[in-house]
Amino acid sequence: MAKLYQLVSVVLRLAAAGAAAPAAIIMVTSHETTSLFGIEMEAKYSYTPSFVFFVVAFAVAFAYSLLVLVVRLGTTASRLVLLTDVIIGMLLTGAVAATGAISDVGKNGNTHAGWLPICGQVQAYCNHVMGALIAGFVSLVVYFLIIMYSLHGVAQPLCACR
Amino acid sequence: MAKLYQLVSVVLRLAAAGAAAPAAIIMVTSHETTSLFGIEMEAKYSYTPSFVFFVVAFAVAFAYSLLVLVVRLGTTASRLVLLTDVIIGMLLTGAVAATGAISDVGKNGNTHAGWLPICGQVQAYCNHVMGALIAGFVSLVVYFLIIMYSLHGVAQPLCACR
Repeated sequence: MAKLYQLVSVVLRLAAAGAAAPAAIIMVTSHETTSLFGIEMEAKYSYTPSFVFFVVAFAVAFAYSLLVLVVRLGTTASRLVLLTDVIIGMLLTGAVAATGAISDVGKNGNTHAGWLPICGQVQAYCNHVMGALIAGFVSLVVYFLIIMYSLHGVAQPLCACR
Repeated sequence: MAKLYQLVSVVLRLAAAGAAAPAAIIMVTSHETTSLFGIEMEAKYSYTPSFVFFVVAFAVAFAYSLLVLVVRLGTTASRLVLLTDVIIGMLLTGAVAATGAISDVGKNGNTHAGWLPICGQVQAYCNHVMGALIAGFVSLVVYFLIIMYSLHGVAQPLCACR
């Protein structure tokens, strides 16, 4: 049973890392320069704090996912894995939510605030960000499954937790 | 030990609910109308999808925090509490992150995207949103403590989870 648990855990963590890496890479490479009425307009992920946060969060998740694979079961470090899994899950949720919120303004604008959509001018940039967001969402879903899978094993009635 | 666990848990959940309620209420009541060059400008939480998400998330967290208080330890429902705590924690993280990202644009703008800051025109509205964000962040931190406290009790070496 421990073997099966370990196998499923390794597969899920490889899947999470396999989605986190492209999420960070696609976001980092999102860049477009366009000209509008003779004025040059440059779109780059580093111009938006939420996108920088996204890159950092998924780079951390990628490194962590691989690092956990070498943690031996039964060690002190393995006791911390469930706690850090939840922290990484929350970090990725924050990154996807913040990026999603800004992407929505980029695509649809916000007429009440006077913020115009920019995706009509920098279509390739927006597609890149959308690709990163999709890969990031996949990684987040896999992390959610990792957490639920681990918790399902340890979730006992609360009176038994102590 | 189970008594102490339950007491700490109840206090933390009341604190989480006590911060979630004002977070949702302050956001719902954030509304300001101002006039700029003769043009009327209205700022309202419902004009921003992230702020609506924020209200829904914290209303759910408030109701859930109180509901959990009546769950009796040792029942089937109590087995699900840890799983749902993590889900609520992730929901609140997403709400705070999305609202924080949009608030940052509202306060500082994004010159590269041509989005101007609006807080100079609707100061009271921005202060309201900031207040909701602070209350929401406090609620999120308390939820994080609830999850860590519960997990600390159940976190065993992974080999012992099965």
